[in-house]
Amino acid sequence: MDAKIVGWGHTPFGALDQSFEELIKTAAAEAIEMAGIDPAEIDAIWLGHFNSGMVPDAFASSLVLALDDRLRFTPATRVENACASGSAAVYAARDAIRAGSAHNVLVIGAEKMTSLDTRGVTQALAGASYQTEEAGVSFPQIFGRITNGYFQAYGDQSDTLARIAVKNHANALANPLAQMRRAVSFDFCNTPSDKNPLIAAPLRLTDCSLISDGAAALVMVAEDRSGFECAAGFRAARQVNDFLPMSRRDMTHLAGAARAFEMAYDEAGLTVNDLDLAEVHDCFTIAELMIYEAMGLAPQGQGARAMSDGTVLADGRLPINLSGGLKAKGHPVGATGVSMHVMAAQQVTGQAGPLQKAGAKLAAVFNMGGSGVANYCSILEARS
Amino acid sequence: MDAKIVGWGHTPFGALDQSFEELIKTAAAEAIEMAGIDPAEIDAIWLGHFNSGMVPDAFASSLVLALDDRLRFTPATRVENACASGSAAVYAARDAIRAGSAHNVLVIGAEKMTSLDTRGVTQALAGASYQTEEAGVSFPQIFGRITNGYFQAYGDQSDTLARIAVKNHANALANPLAQMRRAVSFDFCNTPSDKNPLIAAPLRLTDCSLISDGAAALVMVAEDRSGFECAAGFRAARQVNDFLPMSRRDMTHLAGAARAFEMAYDEAGLTVNDLDLAEVHDCFTIAELMIYEAMGLAPQGQGARAMSDGTVLADGRLPINLSGGLKAKGHPVGATGVSMHVMAAQQVTGQAGPLQKAGAKLAAVFNMGGSGVANYCSILEARS
Repeated sequence: MDAKIVGWGHTPFGALDQSFEELIKTAAAEAIEMAGIDPAEIDAIWLGHFNSGMVPDAFASSLVLALDDRLRFTPATRVENACASGSAAVYAARDAIRAGSAHNVLVIGAEKMTSLDTRGVTQALAGASYQTEEAGVSFPQIFGRITNGYFQAYGDQSDTLARIAVKNHANALANPLAQMRRAVSFDFCNTPSDKNPLIAAPLRLTDCSLISDGAAALVMVAEDRSGFECAAGFRAARQVNDFLPMSRRDMTHLAGAARAFEMAYDEAGLTVNDLDLAEVHDCFTIAELMIYEAMGLAPQGQGARAMSDGTVLADGRLPINLSGGLKAKGHPVGATGVSMHVMAAQQVTGQAGPLQKAGAKLAAVFNMGGSGVANYCSILEARS
Repeated sequence: MDAKIVGWGHTPFGALDQSFEELIKTAAAEAIEMAGIDPAEIDAIWLGHFNSGMVPDAFASSLVLALDDRLRFTPATRVENACASGSAAVYAARDAIRAGSAHNVLVIGAEKMTSLDTRGVTQALAGASYQTEEAGVSFPQIFGRITNGYFQAYGDQSDTLARIAVKNHANALANPLAQMRRAVSFDFCNTPSDKNPLIAAPLRLTDCSLISDGAAALVMVAEDRSGFECAAGFRAARQVNDFLPMSRRDMTHLAGAARAFEMAYDEAGLTVNDLDLAEVHDCFTIAELMIYEAMGLAPQGQGARAMSDGTVLADGRLPINLSGGLKAKGHPVGATGVSMHVMAAQQVTGQAGPLQKAGAKLAAVFNMGGSGVANYCSILEARS
């Protein structure tokens, strides 16, 4: 018996006053209320959370039990796959339902990043690289290197990176939960300046996603349960992990991502042309560009085409990151994968409000941990 | 389709020269070799690991892929439930098989603790308590408080705690992988001294488990696969999480543990009297004493009886911690739950060597995260 998503919750993303525990409880309460189920019915809880020193709570799985006494004694487990921890929680929860171990599951993704300063957050995130070879290298530097390698192989694509930032900022204007609801111009994004400095050349500030607090939650139930107002199911869900050391991979493309997409398309029996929209992992604009290729929108090295021909724009054939993406919606790392599944579920059930793509039937999610190390590709569609 | 355990690996526990990555690979390689399967056949990997700052590797799920190129692209996920992270990995892996998401799964539990000094380790472990109310309180202090509460309710049981330490040290003499293979006398354990100081009164040094490096691994396959030399299956497997704050729980007994045992007995259709042995979570001797009660060996407050009548001794009716337990085998926290499942699987398949209990058919595992917060109870038996 597969799982379907029947409720969701989502805090605003940004620098928030709420504590880590409060964020978890807020998103979970919303999801439970929307699903309309009794907390006593929830028989498993999964928390996606990276941490790595960003909050002192090193054993966070049971925090959400404080929301309601009826949650006491419910199995609760934290999963971690760096910035894909949220999807790791979704997938583990789905397996619990498919296994018959649980029938009604609560999934939460949460991160509180702004308790540390930028330097502290950068250090915490750097723990997600291969320490033996890459210790002390920040993620902007890692993706700066990847960008340089990509540019060497395929030419300078700085303008496309700027256009990706412009697009995601423009999309976020319609998302009330987004951290950055401010349009940015192509010239601003494409020109290093005092206000848009090079963070790790050739990546500029506008090429980097945000430091965010936030949480998102889902209630999933076994597909034979009925009586829910909205339901979204998994047409496909595939996870692929690649070697952690960058030295063992060709970093001009995202091999694990491409494989996850291929397997998901296979499972769903469709191609990229069948998708109505996708939420993908734009931790840096270069990542979104390389994901265009991994998902089959363009051959390797030619991802820029998907932007230049308008495919990925909000009014294009396959809008990418209508939510604003990690770039403008925000990127509380453990929450991101769950947030993406919320956004996709809203779209395929017609509940996306100002972000809605009319008639959206198939929405893809691609969530990534590290530099293409953990790769999760889901394809959601409405269920009765 | 349920899962069965068909291979295992286990490094020695102790202060080891091997790195965290090497520990993971060593245990995994042993388990794969014993199972006799091609690494290409492994379709999911689960890592149980606490970390909390003990190693800089904050994104460890994919480290084991370096063991063999055929593991590239295999889904790999870390799970964490404090000192029960190892069992969390076992349970998630079993669900993946029961869900049909995987057929052959590699499970690893690993921790490298001795890179930090004792103060650093104590601080890292303290992250597993409820930070809002219990920050700065060490785990020995937490279990010291629990011991005081228990003694106030049921009288001073220091002598029983000492006997538990003596028993587990004696058992470990036969375990070549144990960290502490040294007999200790009742008088030594029961008398605070320069060599056995009070760590958190009334707990003495000999009441506390060890700081350890180590890893353990399992290969599990779907039960319809045959041709393995040894196989152990799950007669029952139950997880219960309790509230994280101690202020919300009556700490004179382990309510979540008792519930996990009850549910496991129910699932297995048996009682504590049917068990042949158990590996239980003696992070502190008081925990083992309280687990005697949670598992039904004695009424609440009378756990000492299980020791005084010899039930739990190596030659008793229900030997507890034949391996030496966390007390003497060692307690690399993320590895412990997997190690317990290895020990139990060895016993029910007659492969426990010098630790073997003759004719053992049913072995229980009880692994705990925090002060009774995450509770996992498995009952293993041989499978064809």
